[in-house]
Order: sequence, then structure tokens, then C-alpha cells
Amino acid sequence: MNRRNFFKKTVIAGTGAILIPEIVNAAIPGTNSENAFAGLKKDAVILFQGDSITDTGRKREDENNANAQSMLGNGYVMLTAASLLANNPLESLKIYNRGISGNKVFQLQERWEKDCLSLQPDILSILIGVNDYWHMKGGKYEGDIAKYNADLRDLISSTKKELPGTKIVLCEPFILAGGAALDSTWESEFAGYRDAAKQIARDFNLIFVPFQKVFNEALKKAPVDYWGRDGVHPSLAGAELMSQAWLKAVL
Amino acid sequence: MNRRNFFKKTVIAGTGAILIPEIVNAAIPGTNSENAFAGLKKDAVILFQGDSITDTGRKREDENNANAQSMLGNGYVMLTAASLLANNPLESLKIYNRGISGNKVFQLQERWEKDCLSLQPDILSILIGVNDYWHMKGGKYEGDIAKYNADLRDLISSTKKELPGTKIVLCEPFILAGGAALDSTWESEFAGYRDAAKQIARDFNLIFVPFQKVFNEALKKAPVDYWGRDGVHPSLAGAELMSQAWLKAVL
Repeated sequence: MNRRNFFKKTVIAGTGAILIPEIVNAAIPGTNSENAFAGLKKDAVILFQGDSITDTGRKREDENNANAQSMLGNGYVMLTAASLLANNPLESLKIYNRGISGNKVFQLQERWEKDCLSLQPDILSILIGVNDYWHMKGGKYEGDIAKYNADLRDLISSTKKELPGTKIVLCEPFILAGGAALDSTWESEFAGYRDAAKQIARDFNLIFVPFQKVFNEALKKAPVDYWGRDGVHPSLAGAELMSQAWLKAVL
Repeated sequence: MNRRNFFKKTVIAGTGAILIPEIVNAAIPGTNSENAFAGLKKDAVILFQGDSITDTGRKREDENNANAQSMLGNGYVMLTAASLLANNPLESLKIYNRGISGNKVFQLQERWEKDCLSLQPDILSILIGVNDYWHMKGGKYEGDIAKYNADLRDLISSTKKELPGTKIVLCEPFILAGGAALDSTWESEFAGYRDAAKQIARDFNLIFVPFQKVFNEALKKAPVDYWGRDGVHPSLAGAELMSQAWLKAVL
């Protein structure tokens, strides 16, 4: 079977494109959502926001240096930026990572003027929630699902008013079942945070990236250590799945 | 036009797969070479060897920790590993980076037992040559094209004898015209090193990854700073092109 035939067969089978991991196609089958962006406009600013899963060791001192690898960190943002930049060299994209480890929704709100609104992103991607649960559970924070829901709803609502032209991507917070940092209560207790994010994406007509579904599919193929040992922070392989899922859901 | 139709159209046009940058398809058109590997076997060991372009800040202390991101560095090896690991979770691949900044061919030879043969790679990828020229030009090294050619030929020849089952990938050394570290003499003088590598790949029936062609195509789309400011070390976007080209040429 030569390569051309292989492409044909893949397309006819409707499994999506080569180089998109099978896992991602299982989690995000078929065509994009109705909201999917038609394409990237020239000079588009793309901003990734979130907690440690987004932060991934980015250098704070380079934060205004669009597209710099040191600023992008070592996770799904960097991998997504690599693909976007290599595939769209004519577009002069400007990609930023402003995730901060440990952040909960209210902490995004506190720094939103500086770390979101002032950048006037064309695409804004938010992944937040695991610390809203984790820090509460650890006794370091008093918020609960209701507060997560209210805070995130407020953040999205005010952002839509301030940046009416911005496409907003809301990423599903996720955990990897069996991860070293999780106990057995996580799976049921964290589900409410995921549901809240999903409902907010629906209510505000945002692009939703179903990361939990992606990792659930991934865990059918390889154990949790392969995708992210502690169950919260993805490995390189896990980050690549996130990147491919983001690209498939958003573009 | 829905996504399914878009895939069909792309396939019919024969331009290759979605998510492979247009630049890579221009440099590596159509099907794979006759040598292309049919697939990745289970437990395959994949070793990347070379100089700083391969090294990319990898942590020496993690060098035996297969697939660890810190060991893989921040360049094309890490990006290639991310894709291989996410796409092949059932295969238990073991991927290593043993590039060392500043290396010339004879320095690979000196550490070959420890950093290649002992790992018994199923796939061995080598990118070497820019320092063989650069250090000679800078007066730090007495080698020339003839020595590069002889040293690389010896290295490949002995490796084929020691590791008869290993698939060897020889990557084309490259420069990005106009880079800050290059003067006008580089383009003509370095061509001989590239030609030597290409001829060796032919003579030993190796997979050849035409990185120079990839970057020549890339420079038609965006300036040198976008792909690698100094003309030797690729940016994140440049590293992603390398990764996609490697994957297209090898798999």
C-alpha cells in the first residue's frame, strides 16, 4: 500500500488526518464544532491563560517577547505555538503564554487587565480549575464548585464585554485517573468543576476543548505515567495530545 | 466547505497530510523514499545524535531516562519525540537524545561506544557537520571537507558493521542564509559538506532528511529571524519544521 492509498483509505474511513493522534480523533471525532474559527487572520494575537499546566516553566522576564520559546514554556502552549508558527509563516502570529502556577479563577481576574485585556488577543484560550478544587481540598482555599462557576462566569462575561471581537476558547480542566497526586475522591468530586466549565462554554457560545475526554481515551492505550505521572501535570506525550486536541477543536 | 471535503480535496490534490507544514511538503514532495520504514516496532529504541542543534540544552544527568522531556532538550528532537510518543502509545518507544554542542564528526566517533552502540538503537538519526566547517573557519580546527567526508564515511561504515539491524537516518547539515552568525562565504563553502552527507546517504542506502531544502523553502515565506536568527540554531518554528520533515522522511 503506497502512501497515497494510505491517505485515501484514512480519509474514506473518516478518521481524520494523519499525524493527529488516534486518541484525539476518538475524543474529538469528525468535523469541528460549529463555532470553529475559519482561519487565522494576519497579525493575530493568541493568548494562553491558566495555571501550572499552562505556565510550564515559562520565563517571566520574557513575557512580552511574542513567540519566544523561553516565554512559551515547555508544555502544550509551546507545542501548539510550534505548530501554528510552522504552519502559518505568512500570518505574523503573535503568541503569548501568561499562565501562572497555582492560579485559581479569582487570581486570573486579579491580573486580567495586565495579563489579558491589555494584550487585546484575537484568540484567548483559558484552562483553569484544578487548583480551585485542589487547594480547597488541601485546606488552602475556601472556594467550592459554586464559587468556581460564579467566578468563571463573571470572568467570561466581563471579558466578552471588554473584548467583543475576541474568540474565546474554554478548555476542560482534567485529571488523569490513577495519578500519584490524586486519591480516590478526586474523580467524583472534580467532575462538577468540569461540568461547570462545559456549561459555561455552552452558555457563552465558546469553543470547548474536551481535554478530559482526550485523557480518558489516552488511558485506554497507555498507563498514567506515560501521560502524566501525578495525574495533574502532563508529560511531553500528554502535552502533545493536548496540543493536537486544541488545534483540532479550535482551527 | 466542511472538514471532510477539505480532507478529500487535499488528498485529491496530492499535497500530503493536514498539519504537515506546506513548506515541508514543498521540500519533501509526494511519497516517502523507497527506504522509508514501514512502521515502528514495539519497544523500538530511537537515538538522536549530533551537535548543538540536537543537544538544545538537554540535561546530561537525565541521559538514561528515556522519553524524559529534560533529557530530550528543547529542539527538533523533543518535538519529534512528542509526536512519536503521542501517536504510538502502544509501542513503548524509548527515545534518547545524545547530541553534544560543538561536536564534529570525530567527536561522535570518540564517544560512539557509550553514546550510540551501547544503546543498540533500532533507529539512529545523525545530524552533524556545521561545526566541522565553522570551527575550521574560526581557526579552532584543522579539518576540511575531505576530512568530514572521510570521518563520516568511517563512522557510518563501522556503525553498519556493529549494528547491522539499525536503520540509519542521515540528516542534511544546513544553514539559514542571512543568519547573524554567517558571512557571505558560508553559502558556497558549506555546500560541499552538504553534498558529502548526501552522497554518503546514497552510498550506504540511508534515509536522508533534506533540511537545507526545507529551510530554503521556509525562507521564501518568512525572514531568517523567524526560523533561526543566527542562521545555525533554529527557532521553535524552525525546529518544528525539522521535526515534521524528519517524520515525513523517516516514517
